Amino acid sequence: MLSNVLIIGVGLIGGSLGLALKESPLVKKVSGVDNDPESLKKALEIGAIDDSALLEDGVKEADVVFLCTSPGAYASIIERIKPHLKPNAIISDVGSTKLEVMELLGNLPAGVSAIGGHPMAGSETQGINGADRYLFENAVYVLSPDASATNEKLNYLKNLLEATGARIKIMEAKPHDELVATISHIPHLLAAALVNLTGGESNSLMMAAGGFRDTTRIASSNPELWLDILFSNRSCLPEKLDNIMEIINNMKKALENNDRELMRQELSSAKAIRDRIPHIRKGLIPGFSDIVCIVPDRPGIIGKLGLIMDKENINIVDIEILRVREGDGGTIRLGVPTLEDAHRAVAALQQEAIKGWVR
Amino acid sequence: MLSNVLIIGVGLIGGSLGLALKESPLVKKVSGVDNDPESLKKALEIGAIDDSALLEDGVKEADVVFLCTSPGAYASIIERIKPHLKPNAIISDVGSTKLEVMELLGNLPAGVSAIGGHPMAGSETQGINGADRYLFENAVYVLSPDASATNEKLNYLKNLLEATGARIKIMEAKPHDELVATISHIPHLLAAALVNLTGGESNSLMMAAGGFRDTTRIASSNPELWLDILFSNRSCLPEKLDNIMEIINNMKKALENNDRELMRQELSSAKAIRDRIPHIRKGLIPGFSDIVCIVPDRPGIIGKLGLIMDKENINIVDIEILRVREGDGGTIRLGVPTLEDAHRAVAALQQEAIKGWVR
Repeated sequence: MLSNVLIIGVGLIGGSLGLALKESPLVKKVSGVDNDPESLKKALEIGAIDDSALLEDGVKEADVVFLCTSPGAYASIIERIKPHLKPNAIISDVGSTKLEVMELLGNLPAGVSAIGGHPMAGSETQGINGADRYLFENAVYVLSPDASATNEKLNYLKNLLEATGARIKIMEAKPHDELVATISHIPHLLAAALVNLTGGESNSLMMAAGGFRDTTRIASSNPELWLDILFSNRSCLPEKLDNIMEIINNMKKALENNDRELMRQELSSAKAIRDRIPHIRKGLIPGFSDIVCIVPDRPGIIGKLGLIMDKENINIVDIEILRVREGDGGTIRLGVPTLEDAHRAVAALQQEAIKGWVR
Repeated sequence: MLSNVLIIGVGLIGGSLGLALKESPLVKKVSGVDNDPESLKKALEIGAIDDSALLEDGVKEADVVFLCTSPGAYASIIERIKPHLKPNAIISDVGSTKLEVMELLGNLPAGVSAIGGHPMAGSETQGINGADRYLFENAVYVLSPDASATNEKLNYLKNLLEATGARIKIMEAKPHDELVATISHIPHLLAAALVNLTGGESNSLMMAAGGFRDTTRIASSNPELWLDILFSNRSCLPEKLDNIMEIINNMKKALENNDRELMRQELSSAKAIRDRIPHIRKGLIPGFSDIVCIVPDRPGIIGKLGLIMDKENINIVDIEILRVREGDGGTIRLGVPTLEDAHRAVAALQQEAIKGWVR
C-alpha cells in the first residue's frame, strides 16, 4: 500500500523525517503543514516535503499523520484534525513521553489508530535548517500502539519508518515513560543539580575535570525544551526522584558511619551494571572493537591517528578522548569494525611509537 | 640547587613523575622505593628512576620526597621516615585529598616542610607499566603548603614540577578538599546512584542514550580506589550531599506543584554556569576554536575528517562525537587552533558536501 504522509510541523524532527520518508518505497507523497511559511518554503526547497497543505485539507488526504510540533500544541491540533481523519488512518507523534499524548489521542473516530512514537535522536540545531536525512540512523525509535492499533497497522508503520535507519522498539506508554525518566530525565535533573552545586564559582569551574564535564554536559541543553519534556513526565518523575535521594542518603550514611562495606556495595553494583552497557549496545548497533592508545598532548595527533588508520585501510567507527588528563589529548579510545582490525591497528600504532592496546 | 628526589611507591603516578622529573634541570638524581621488587626493576628499566633504595637510606639522602603509595600506607611510612628526613627537606604527596595527609605531616622535624600535592590526572591503567612521561601534561596540579613552608621552598617545588608540563595551582588543604568534593567526589557518587537506579534492567541499559552514558561513565571506575578517595574526604562530603539532596528536592517540588518557574530557574542557572566552563578552561589550556559538523553515520567518516583537515594543514586539537544520535557518528565537534582555522575548516568541509559551522 502506497501512503500519503502528512507531517504537521516541519522543524528539525519533522523535516528530517520527511527527508528520510521520501526515500521509502511505501510512500506516495509527503505533505507538510506549518504555521511558519518560511519553514514550509525551506522544507520544499530541500525536498523534505513534496507539497504544503492547510491542516484540515492535508489530514483529509493522509494515510499516515505525524505530529511533529512542540508537545504543547498537540491538544489543539488533535481537536482540529479529529473530524477530518481518514477512516483507517494512522496517527503518530515524535514526543519524548507517551502517556500524555496517548491520552489526548484517546477518542479517535472508529478505524483510526494512534501509535505514539519517540525517536531517541536530536541535534544541536533547531528548525528546518538543521534537518538531516540521517538524523534517526541507528537511533532507537520507540512505538507505543494504543489498544485499537492492529498488528497489521503497527507493522505497516514499522516498515515505513525503516527508511529512517532507526531501530524500532515496541513498548507501552507507561513503561516507556518510566524508562525515559530513569535513563534521560533524572540524569538531566542531576546534571543541572551538580552544576548548581558549584554555585558558579570560577575556581571550581576552571578545575572541573573530565569526569565533571562528562557528567554535566547535558546541563547545557535548552531549558525551555526540557521544561516541556520534564513536565510531560510529571506522573513518573517525583517517585524516581525519591528513589535516587534514598540511594544518595544511603551513601551519606555510609560516609558518616565510616561503613566502607555499604559504600563498596553501591560502587561495585554501579560498576557491574555500567560495564554491561557497551556489551548490551553491541546487540543494537553494529559491533565493533575498541583499542586505547596513549598519545602526547600535541596538536595534530588526531589527524595523525586518522592517517595511520587510513594507510592500513582501517575504518575508525568511533573515537573518544578519554580526558583522563585534564588537557585535551592524552588517552584516546578508537572503535574499529572488527577484533582483527583492532590488532592490526595496535601494530600500526606501535610502528609509529604510539603505545596502544586492545580493550 | 640540584636535588636528590625520592619517589616512595613507583606505580602509575610515581613512575610517571619519575619519567618527567628526570628531565628537569633541577634534578641530580631520582631514587625509587617500593615494596614490590618487580616494580622497582621495571622502573629502572624504563628510566623512571636512576636507582632503587631502602626507605630509610633513600630518605637520608633526599632533598625532595614524594609519597606516591596508596593513601592508606601514608601514616606508617611517615612515622618511619620522620627521624631520617634531611633538615630543609621538602615532603610532598600525590593523594586526591589534602586535609588528612597534612594532618599526618603535622609534626615534622624543624626545617622540614610539608607541601601536599594533587596532580589531577589519571589513566585507565595501573602500576608502573602504565607510567607515561606525559601523564601530567596540561593537568591541574594543586600544591597545598603547610604553615612552615617558605615561599622559597614552594617556588622551588613549583619549578621542579614544571618538567611535568602540569599547571600548578596553590590552594589550602580545606578549600581544596571542598572543591574536589564538588567537582569530583559528588559527581562520582551521583553517577553510581544513577546507574543503580536502573536496577540493571537490560531494556534500560540498551536504550541508554548518549546523555546517560556520558553522565555515568565514571561509575565504571575502580571501586577500591574510590573508596579510599571518598573516605579520605569524609569531613566534607556529608554536608555537600545534603546540599545536593536539597536541590533535587526542590526540583521534585517544582514538578509536584506544577511550578514551571521554579524548574526554569534551576535549569537556566545550570545552563548559564555550565556554558562558562569551556571559556574558563581556555585560560588554562591553549585556546582553540570549535566547529560542529554533521556527518552520515558511516564507517570511515572520522578518518575522512582527519584527511580533509590534513590537506588544509589544519590541526585537530580536540574531537568529540556529540552522540546526539544514539548510534555512533552523527554530529561531531572539532577543536582547531584558531578562529581562522575554524572558518577554513568549514569551507573545506563544505567542498566535500559536509555541513558544518563555527560554534
